This record gives sequence, C-alpha cells and structure tokens, in this order.
Amino acid sequence: MHDTPVTAAADLSDDELRALDAHWRAANYLSVGQIYLMSNPLLAEPLRPEHVKPRLLGHWGTSPGLNLVHTHLNRVVKARGRKALCVWGPGHGGPAVLANSWLEGSYSETYPDVGRDAEGMARLFRQFSFPGGVPSHVAPETPGSIHEGGELGYSLSHAYGAALDNPDLLVACVIGDGEAETGPLAASWHGNKFLDPVHDGAVLPILHLNGYKIANPSVLARLPEQELDELLRGYGHEPIHVTGEIPATVHLTMARAMDTALDRITLIQRTAREENVTERPRWPVIVLRTPKGWTGPAEVDGLPVEGTWRSHQVPLTAVRENPRQLRLLERWLRSYSPQELFDERGRPTAEVLACVPDGDLRLGSTPHANGGLLLCDLPVPALERHAVPVDKPGMTLHEPTRVLGGLLEEVMEATTDRRDFRLVGPDETASNRLQAVYGASGKAWQAEILDVDDHLDRHGRVMEILSEHTCQGWLEGYLLTGRHGLFSCYEAFVHIVDSMVNQHIKWLRTTRALPWRRPIASLNYLLTSHVWRQDHNGFSHQDPGFVDHVLNKSPEVVRVYLPPDTNTLLSVADHVLRSRDYVNVVVAGKQPCFDWLGLEAARAHCARGAGIWEWAGTEDGAHEPDVVLACAGDVPTQEVLAAASLLRRHLPQLAVRVVNVVDLARLLPGEEHPHGMPDPEYDALFTRDKPVVFAYHGYPWLIHRLAYRRAGHPHLHVRGYKEIGTTTTPFDMVVRNDLDRYRLVMDVIDRVPGLAVRAAPVRQLMEDTRLRHHAWIREHGTDLPEVTDWTWTD
Amino acid sequence: MHDTPVTAAADLSDDELRALDAHWRAANYLSVGQIYLMSNPLLAEPLRPEHVKPRLLGHWGTSPGLNLVHTHLNRVVKARGRKALCVWGPGHGGPAVLANSWLEGSYSETYPDVGRDAEGMARLFRQFSFPGGVPSHVAPETPGSIHEGGELGYSLSHAYGAALDNPDLLVACVIGDGEAETGPLAASWHGNKFLDPVHDGAVLPILHLNGYKIANPSVLARLPEQELDELLRGYGHEPIHVTGEIPATVHLTMARAMDTALDRITLIQRTAREENVTERPRWPVIVLRTPKGWTGPAEVDGLPVEGTWRSHQVPLTAVRENPRQLRLLERWLRSYSPQELFDERGRPTAEVLACVPDGDLRLGSTPHANGGLLLCDLPVPALERHAVPVDKPGMTLHEPTRVLGGLLEEVMEATTDRRDFRLVGPDETASNRLQAVYGASGKAWQAEILDVDDHLDRHGRVMEILSEHTCQGWLEGYLLTGRHGLFSCYEAFVHIVDSMVNQHIKWLRTTRALPWRRPIASLNYLLTSHVWRQDHNGFSHQDPGFVDHVLNKSPEVVRVYLPPDTNTLLSVADHVLRSRDYVNVVVAGKQPCFDWLGLEAARAHCARGAGIWEWAGTEDGAHEPDVVLACAGDVPTQEVLAAASLLRRHLPQLAVRVVNVVDLARLLPGEEHPHGMPDPEYDALFTRDKPVVFAYHGYPWLIHRLAYRRAGHPHLHVRGYKEIGTTTTPFDMVVRNDLDRYRLVMDVIDRVPGLAVRAAPVRQLMEDTRLRHHAWIREHGTDLPEVTDWTWTD
Repeated sequence: MHDTPVTAAADLSDDELRALDAHWRAANYLSVGQIYLMSNPLLAEPLRPEHVKPRLLGHWGTSPGLNLVHTHLNRVVKARGRKALCVWGPGHGGPAVLANSWLEGSYSETYPDVGRDAEGMARLFRQFSFPGGVPSHVAPETPGSIHEGGELGYSLSHAYGAALDNPDLLVACVIGDGEAETGPLAASWHGNKFLDPVHDGAVLPILHLNGYKIANPSVLARLPEQELDELLRGYGHEPIHVTGEIPATVHLTMARAMDTALDRITLIQRTAREENVTERPRWPVIVLRTPKGWTGPAEVDGLPVEGTWRSHQVPLTAVRENPRQLRLLERWLRSYSPQELFDERGRPTAEVLACVPDGDLRLGSTPHANGGLLLCDLPVPALERHAVPVDKPGMTLHEPTRVLGGLLEEVMEATTDRRDFRLVGPDETASNRLQAVYGASGKAWQAEILDVDDHLDRHGRVMEILSEHTCQGWLEGYLLTGRHGLFSCYEAFVHIVDSMVNQHIKWLRTTRALPWRRPIASLNYLLTSHVWRQDHNGFSHQDPGFVDHVLNKSPEVVRVYLPPDTNTLLSVADHVLRSRDYVNVVVAGKQPCFDWLGLEAARAHCARGAGIWEWAGTEDGAHEPDVVLACAGDVPTQEVLAAASLLRRHLPQLAVRVVNVVDLARLLPGEEHPHGMPDPEYDALFTRDKPVVFAYHGYPWLIHRLAYRRAGHPHLHVRGYKEIGTTTTPFDMVVRNDLDRYRLVMDVIDRVPGLAVRAAPVRQLMEDTRLRHHAWIREHGTDLPEVTDWTWTD
Repeated sequence: MHDTPVTAAADLSDDELRALDAHWRAANYLSVGQIYLMSNPLLAEPLRPEHVKPRLLGHWGTSPGLNLVHTHLNRVVKARGRKALCVWGPGHGGPAVLANSWLEGSYSETYPDVGRDAEGMARLFRQFSFPGGVPSHVAPETPGSIHEGGELGYSLSHAYGAALDNPDLLVACVIGDGEAETGPLAASWHGNKFLDPVHDGAVLPILHLNGYKIANPSVLARLPEQELDELLRGYGHEPIHVTGEIPATVHLTMARAMDTALDRITLIQRTAREENVTERPRWPVIVLRTPKGWTGPAEVDGLPVEGTWRSHQVPLTAVRENPRQLRLLERWLRSYSPQELFDERGRPTAEVLACVPDGDLRLGSTPHANGGLLLCDLPVPALERHAVPVDKPGMTLHEPTRVLGGLLEEVMEATTDRRDFRLVGPDETASNRLQAVYGASGKAWQAEILDVDDHLDRHGRVMEILSEHTCQGWLEGYLLTGRHGLFSCYEAFVHIVDSMVNQHIKWLRTTRALPWRRPIASLNYLLTSHVWRQDHNGFSHQDPGFVDHVLNKSPEVVRVYLPPDTNTLLSVADHVLRSRDYVNVVVAGKQPCFDWLGLEAARAHCARGAGIWEWAGTEDGAHEPDVVLACAGDVPTQEVLAAASLLRRHLPQLAVRVVNVVDLARLLPGEEHPHGMPDPEYDALFTRDKPVVFAYHGYPWLIHRLAYRRAGHPHLHVRGYKEIGTTTTPFDMVVRNDLDRYRLVMDVIDRVPGLAVRAAPVRQLMEDTRLRHHAWIREHGTDLPEVTDWTWTD
C-alpha cells in the first residue's frame, strides 16, 4: 500500500493535524480497551491477566478505519456547521462507533451510568460483548445509529433512504469492502439516479478498502485502481482516492478529500437549487485504502497480522494465558500514549475534543438517527371519500388496490409540502393498480427523461427500481429517520427481502427496551399480485410464505392482515399507516373482488380482527351451528361464501356459520401475541367441538400452528395453497389446491356427523361439477360460466 | 436509438444475411403466434376472432431481442462447431425460446406430439400459457434451459456456474436491463474474478437494453453510453456495443460483435492454456440496444407501443372484440411474410434453417442443459476413516464440521481430475471449520495474489465470495449442468437466498414430471455457526427459520437433517452427497460437541431418522415411560441428555425415554411427506398419551405444525428458540430461551401427573440453579462451572 501523495499544500495547521491524530488515537485506544479490558482502563498500573476479559470477543480489523472516518467527519461537520448522519456499514466495528460516541459525550448523555471519566471508561470497556452488556456490533443501543451491523449489504440504501426529503442533511456512508461484494450493496449504488438534489440531502459514500474479509482478500481491494475508478464512474460517481498507512499523510489527504467532497456537494446542490440545472450530477465518492487492523500488532507468533485478514477479529487471542501476548497487548495499548489523551480522571483532553462538534451536530446526537423525535402524524384522509357503497354483499366488484390508490393519492397530496411520505416498489405501482398516486406525485427519476415516459418526475416521491432489496433499504432508512411509507410488492417476490425484514424486526424489538429511542412509523407491506391470481406468470410467481416467515418473529412487532374486500382494505390501510413500531403485512388482491362489507361494517370487522358474518350463514342464533366455514384472504372468502350459498341451496337444514379472519394473529393465544384471542372468545367464534372448515390464503399448516392450543383444534380442517401452481385460470388454481367451493362443500359433508348418507347426492353433484370444470377448461381455456357469473345473491 | 455504424466491411454475404433475417422473422412470427393464436397458425385463411385465444397472456416486449440473439448464436455455433449453452435471463421471453427450439427441431424431438409442421405449430401456439399447457416463461419444460424465467436476478451467476469446469463450453447469458437492476445480478458481474480460463469455459454476457421494464425505463438504458461503458469496464469486461433498429444493419453489427467476442475468448483461453499467462483477462461483453417490442405494432389507439414500455406484455389486448385490432394483428403477423418462411405443410424452409447447427450443438439439445445426462456418481469415501471413536457416549468432544472437512477433503481430492465437485460459501469455509479441504484444493481466485494470502489458487474449486446470492447461483448452475456441490453458510444468513431456493425447489418439483429431464445432484446446504453459538455476534446472527421456510415447499423435494454429533453428521453428509433431485438442509454446529454415537450406531440412527436412545433413558422396556424427552439439534440434544442425567440422579424412580430426531420430516404423517412416519411408528416412539417434552433447535411451533395430527399431540410441549438473543455465553442463550437442562427438568415435573408434590424440592433446586446462573454470569461473564464441566457420565 502506498500513500496517496498530498498533491497540493495541505490546509491543516500543525495544531489541527495533531488534534485530529489525538482524537483518532483516543478512539483507537478505546476500541482496543473494549475488546480486551475488564478493569485498569487507563493503564494506571502494569497490565495483569485479571484486567483482561475471560472471553475475548469483537472485531478490531475495521475499527481504526472507522475511527479515522469519524474523526474527519467531526472536523468537517464542526468547521461547516453541517448537519450530518453517518451509516456505518462495517457494523462489526461496534467498538469504534461506541468509542467515538463516548468521546464526544453523546454516549454518557444517553446512558448516564457510563460517564465520560475513568469509571465510565471502565464500564464502557466491561459492558462490550459481555453478557448483559452491549452487542459487539453497531446496534439499536448505539447512539447515532440507524443501521444494525451484522448482516451486510444494506448500508448504502439506508443512507439514501435517510437523505430523501432531508435537503440540509449530509449522510455519510462507510461501505466495507466485504459488504461491497453483496448483491444488495452492488445494486444500491444506483440510488444516485433517484436522489433529487433539490429536495433531498446528499449521500457521501466512503468505500473503505482495508483489503480483507474474514479469511480472504476482498474483490474490490484487488482491482487495479484504474479499474475500480471506472467501476465507480460507471456507477455515476466522481471518485476521490485516499490511500496510505502513515497516519500523518493519511490525515492530510483525508482532510483534503473530505473538503473536496463537501465543496462538490455544496456546488451540486446550489446548481440544482438556485440555477435549476436538472442534469444528473456526478456525486463524489471517497475510496479509502488503509490497512486492516491498522496500528495493531504487526506480527504475532511470527505471522503478519496488521494489514492482513488475521486482524479481522481479536489479533491476540491468548492474552490471559500467555505472558508474551499480555506484554504485546500492553505495548499496543500504550502505543497510543493514553496519558496524553486522557487526564488523570479519565476525561478526554481538550486537544482530543478539539475536532468534536457541539450538541445535535455530534454524530451520536443527531435527532435524525432517532427518527421518532422528528416524526409527525400522517394525514390519513377520511375513508368515506374512498369507500365503495355496498347495498347488499357480493353484488358489486371492485379492485381493492385500485381504490386504495385513491386513498394513497390523498396522503401523497396532503404531504406535498411536508414531504414525509413515500411509496416504494419494484416497478410495480401501476401493475399493482395503485397508479392514482401519480395524480399527486410522479416517480423519482434523475436520469434521462423521454416523451414516451410515464409520470417520471425529478421531484417525485414514488420510488421504483427493480430491486426489492433497494426498495426495502430505502424505506427502512426513510422510516428510521422519522418519516412514513409503504412498500407494495408482488407477494411471491417479497421473500427476496426475508433477511432484511428479519433485521428490521430485530431492530424494532430491541428499541422497545430503549426508552430514549422514540417510536417510528411502522414498516408497511402491501403484498398483492398474489398466489391465486398469477394468470400470466404461473408457478414461479406463487408463494404465500412471507406471512409464515414474519410470524416466526417477535410478536410485539409483527402484524398480518388479510382484508377480504375493498372497504376492509381501506380500514386496514388506515390503521397501519397510523401505527408505530410495527411491521405490518397486508395481503390484498388487485383483481376485481366482491364487495362484502360497507365502510362501517368493515371498520367494525377490522377492529375485531375476526368475526361471524351472520348474513352469510344459516344458523338460528339460539344454538351452536352444525359447522363453521372460516376464511382468511380475498379468494378464500369468495370460495367460502360460494360454498355457503351452495349449502343453503342444497342442504337448507344445515346450520352453517361463516367466520372471516382479517387479523391473523387473533388466532394465537393471548399469551403468544398481543392480538391473540382469549380461549372463550375463540370458542365463541369457532365452537369447541363443531367441525371447522377453514379456507386460508396461504400454506394451510400455518393455521394449525396458530390454533393448535385451542380446544376445537382436533376439529379444524384447513384448505390452502399446497404448492401446486401453473399458468392457468383463477378458478382452476383453487380447484388444483382443493380450495374451491365444491371441494369445501364436500369437506363439510365429510365432516358433519351424520351427513354422509343424507347428503350423498349433493356430494356427488359437487364431484361432478369439478369433473365438468376439468373438461371445460381443457377445451375452452376459460372457467365454467357458472363460476365466472356467480354472485352471492344468485 | 441510432444504429451502430458498421465500421468495417461486414463479413456476411447477402445470402447469409437473408438467411439470418429469415430465421429471425420466423422466430418472431412464432412468438406472436403463441401469444395470440388458437388455430389458423399459417394464416391460410383471413384471421377471424375465433382463431384468437380467449385469454391473451405472454410477454412480447423482450421476444424479438431474444430471437435476434438466438439466431446469431446459431450462426457462430454452427460456423465454429463450438459447444454452447445459453441462459435466458429475460425469462418472460418464453415465446422466443420456444419458437427457436421448435424451429431447430429440438422441441419436436423432446415432445413428439408437437411436430415441426402445421399441426405441431398449431399445438405449439395453443399450449402456450393455456390451462394444462406450458408456462409463459422459460421453464423446466423448455428444452435447452437451466434457468427459470420469472423471478429475476440469477442469470449471470447461473451462467458462471454452468461454465465452471467445462473448459470447452461457451455459456452465453442474456441479461435483461430490468434484471440488471437487481442486487443478485449486480453482484454476479464479479464472477469473472473467479473464472479460471484454463479449466473453466467462457461466459459471454449479452446485456440486452430494450429500454423498459414493466412501466418504467430501465436505469442502465438511460445511462450515457460512455458511463455504461465505464461500468462494464469497471466490472472487468471489454464491452462491444450493438445498437440499432434497422434489422439489416443490426444483423451485420451483431454478427461482427459475436465474431469479435468469440475470437477474443479463443485468444484468452489459448493464452492461458498454452502460454500459461495468469493475468486476469478482460472477457468480452456485448451490449445490445434494440427497441422493446421491436417489429410489433408501432402505435395502438394513437399511443406509441413499439420501442416503449407498452410493449411489455400483449400490445393488442382486445383482438377478439375489436375488429380494428384484429386487422392490426393480422397485418403484424403477415409483416414477417410467413409464406416465405414455412412451406405449405408448415415446415421451416431451408433458408430459415440455414443457420441452425446440428445435433447436440443446437441450443435446445445441448446435454449440458439436462445435467443428469452427464452426471457421474460422486466418490464419497468410506466414513470409517473419518469417524470419531466413541467408547462411551458424552465423554469426548469434537467439532462436527471440522471432522466433516476431512471427509470433504477426500471428496475434493478424489475429484481432482474429474473436476465435478465444488464447495461454495460466503467467505466462511474456514470460519465454519471446513478448512481441511484446502489440503485438496485452494480457493478460486483470478485477481491479484499476495504472499500473505491463504490458499488462494487460480485453479481452486472452493468458491468464496461475500454474496450468498452469488454462491447459490453458482452452485445451482453447476448442479443443473450435471455436477456436485455443497453450500456452507451461517444459518441466519441463508435467509438471504430464501427466494432463490424457492425457485430451485419449484424447478426440481417440475422436472419430476418430465421424464426426459434426468435427475441431478441435490442442492446441499450445511448450515452452521447456528443460532445457539453466536457468542461473537448476537441477535443479528440468530435465526433458525430457514428450516420452516423450506418445509413449506414441495415435500417430494425437501429434506431437513439435524445431526446431533460428529458421526451422525458424517452419516448424513454421506447420504446427501449421494442423493439426487433434493434440496437437503443440514444444520450442524462447528463448536465442540459431545460424541454420542459411534459410527455404526450413527448410521443406524440416521437411517431410521428418529429413534429411542435407550442408554440415555431410565425406562424398563416392559412398560411405557412416564415421560418422553425428545430432541432435535446438537445443542438441544446436549440439554436433553443433561436433563435426563439430572432426572436420573434426583428422581431415579421416574421412567424417562429419550428420543432423538435427525430427519425432521419423520415427524410428518406419511401422506404429507415421503419420509413421514405412519402413526403406529410415531406412537411407538412418542407414546399416545404420555407427556413429551421436546427440545428443538429452532422455532418451537414448527414441531407442532409437523405433529399436530398425531394422537399424542395434546401432550406435546416444545421448547426452542423464541427470538430472544444477544451477545452472550452459550449456556445463557439456552437459559434465556427456556431450553436449558434445568428448565427441561422443571417442564417434566410440571407435566408428569402426580409429580408436582413429590418432586417439589427438585423443582426448587432447578429454579435455584437458574438463579445462581444469572448471578454468576453477571459477575464473571462466563457460564457456571458445573455447566461447562458437565459430561454425560458424571
């Protein structure tokens, strides 16, 4: 590694340089201290084995580079008085970010028991990666962070999400060269084609090449500089390279790089904002090449460590047992000259703190990293203006998501000036029939615009890129910094972000125990173009399992709704858009769907989450029904109501109850989920001993997993998607999966005691109709007319 | 769009040009025909509404571009006699790939009922996207394909996987500009840093910019050509640009581009193979810019269609109802002059077929796209050489994955010449303790190599990149072309590929019904660094839900194994490495784990999949036990055995049975999964009415979802991971999730009838020990000595 020559006279005075280096050394010292020390934090006495933690955990390798970035961000933020947030991609560098936060005082203000003195330093060290202490990664517990370290790939899309609609904010983003190999990160570079220099803030990516991952060199670090430069230019950036290992030289070039980058950003924003230039700017990117584990032990046991993959975690692993390693550790710690950095009471010296900005300008204290502080209630309009009239159930059809689009248009319109609501999706807003929103805002786009394009808008707040990862990352960054949004996605392909939503749910769960973290807007998914209506696309587009995935996660956080028609979708949307700190999954169709409930009935039904539809059943109210037909999801609801109508016609004496479930967690016991129903309530809906035929939108065993503790569970029979799919008609799909009305009637006949003989002719009729379906579809390629023409009151 | 100037004299003769254009027009005609026509395939009579399908489904937009690529690939394959495979990334272009396959005869050879004549053409048209017919995407049913269309992002990593260890194969890969926005695709460009020009074949990416996705322009199509050029150079490629809309010009420039690319590939391979040059080559990439929906209707209802996003699916949507649209469709179809392309019997003319290669050189007939044809049994060595000796259970400890590493080394060694086995992983082979494999093969790496690097090898067959998506894509491509492999991954982060494994499972399920598709090697996951041992990493690295995800999928395909110790891991590995057409998920720890079973016992236990460990229980064999302690997973097994040992000591009269489950699907009913146990067998293991305390590795409700139909289910009590995690000690993790030995003993006492009073002191002792744990860990940061020192026979 060669140091980038300082090509022009450096602008730093000797004092400034010394102060920056002091801050950096202090952060490095504190990083090492957290990994190793239980006590003796200032090395007031010679290091002894009992000062060292019994379990050595943490990641040193990335820490000195992060400390360098933090130090230099401090400098420019202070010098320019510029609001800034930093996303720390190499999240294993927890020690570094914690060290800086402690140095600047943010940490002690957030956690007063960890003061900025020797005693606090001892606590800072001890708690790190210690049972009952703080995680080894940048985490929700870390002041100033909106980005969990651990799983990699999301830093840059988080940074873009944070910068959107924050015109005065600088969002720096450190990207590790390991993380840079991931798909989500590789895609997220193109965020600059969506960043509006007028209404959005700036994102400054800092690609940190320390050369190695866990055990391998990183790909980008082994490209010739020219090739990497082309890659970043191809991504639309203007690269600024900082390479080195001599601290003084690196400080000088890094300071110059930061100034160049910020000057360029200021110029870009002024050009766009004051001169109305619309040409897509080439934003700066800093490429920082410094050794992995820089300033750590150069060699251990004859093997090179500093500058290699051996620095990734803990360079000296046997310090307690091995006196030579103990001496090496002490020498390493003392190499930072702690006595020059901290006074006798353990407080950082004035020189160390010289670069640190004040108050909310400190990276650990920015309110943008604690979005709930900035969050305003979303102006969700009255549903009355959008609700569809329902005189009688099942007589009219609407496309639920299209109607929702009208509601979203109003939200979009009402936030025109506030700019705190965004809709994201992978090029599917119109396909998902939400295009009414374009009436209030077009689609964000900074690249070339042609006449033939549809609703592209340099200042738009609808975000579309064919990368679910990027959509998710943008929205997370936007919500975590105190704004609102909705992600609309094809149901099957939301699995693409399974692991991202995991991390967001974990984040929200953790913040529940941190009173200083204020609630943020929920992450809302609208899953549409769902499993039952993939007429164009078939098997590859059929997967209703995201619901199963999220229901494995913290019940405090996850909510799943399956509104059966248009007005219930509006009511659910109203609820989730106003909610806080949840991950709400709403599954709703875009195809014409029967209207079952008027607005008031829909509201009442959604508030209960599950209820009896008396008008659809045939029970007398005085006795328990003979059978319960239950449903969750729009297509299953239609099939259940058609089955109820067949039963009414063919078996009029049978007492049938119809139960619809909107809020899936209602099926869980109360002690398993905040929405769970107490047993008496469940029994009152589903009975304790009558057969229940349950038509469910997704994989049928999910209903069993939710209801297995109920008294009536042995009598529960669930139909759903059995992973049988292809390109076919809507009704053929339900037939193939045994979810169709005729099959449901057969299920009822098979399960109600004593019905088998009496109802044998009806059962045969159902069987015959299914056979007729098979013959008809092979010949005509369409569904039976009696199915396509069906309405509830026929 | 401007046509790329033909800078040098074109090499095509007029006859060749005319023949290429005829082939392309024929393919376009057949593509349109599939989307629209039910009958009258050759337009022998004027088009009438009843000739048109009642439901118009399919994607025209991408088809003409794919047809162009196929036509030109035909030319170079035939001219050079070069074996080739093509991966069709824009998988919605099913009509195009089907058309070409029918033209070259591959289709009729695979499906004799669809002959290469008028009657066959009518069938080809009718079956497309028709109920009971073929999917609208490139799919397993499509001859010559290894790549499902539908979900996007995986084409290029599939292409690299196919090229590995196929030195004579050219793998072309068409990448749509929509797909190019996805994360997995963006990451996969760096595959060229891992492609060995000596032992691997060539990958020729063809980036097809038709400008639009569903409703938006694509990002890459709106970059200035210079910027895109830089991006591709930054990805390590030498771009060749082909831009145009005048067919004759495009044919000339495309032919020249293909020749340039193939000449360059030949030169690269010769340089590496004959001159031993090891510098990483800059492989060619073709950038093809042609209009979306090229040659389709220019305008419909006054709106531009050709060259816009409106061409994405079906440009004329009301052909049956609207006579003007019917005339437009007929004019469109006749614009290709079908009478010049097909003889009166519907057979393609000699001119159309002039560019088509023969036999296995045809893209639809290459055996590489039907990997089972080429697959050889993997030489898995005798387990005896690797098994650990077990005199008594629970006396010795081994790291299971480290021992497995020795087995894999032998497999790697035995395939040195055959080169048909690869190990993939996201930079975790050593972290997962499989590093013994490096004894037989290093890690593939074509970039710069430094002295400090560890086992990098230009010809290595261990593949490491920090992108789970790329690992998965490489391995899928490798397996689908007839080779073997294993993906080792951190358990939590395998969720990153949830949606990819979905598609692979769907592929395998579909191929089961296609006798011409021969079985391929299973996709094997080794999930390690699992939820219970994230001492360094904590909550973000804790997620055992991949098992839940795959168990939702086709039971014919998915298998889940949780070997409890080293020898059972070896036995499971032996089985999965030899198996075919499955997705096998193996969850096993890398940390020291007690050895419970000797090799023979391990083999017998794994063959049964679940069984009683008599030596661990206290039942007398004559009567049913009082309680069953069941376990699945290494850490739960350890806790159950410790609990059994506590029960033996403190409640010696209690008859305890210990059951271990290796093969999770055994718990399912026989009719739900091929491995499912019949009820009598289940009852014999778990009893019908005795309490079962089940300690499970993952989310506890999964066990309920598997076992809810069993008679004994009401007595089943499951402990597992409850999404409570942090950076802490191993034992503290099980305590926090109520999976620890003391809690299990309390569960037994709470559930065995009549035990509550008698065992109250024991219960109190357990409770006290848990309290002692909490106090100890807060002070020392380590686990109680009695836990860390525990062995089975204490």
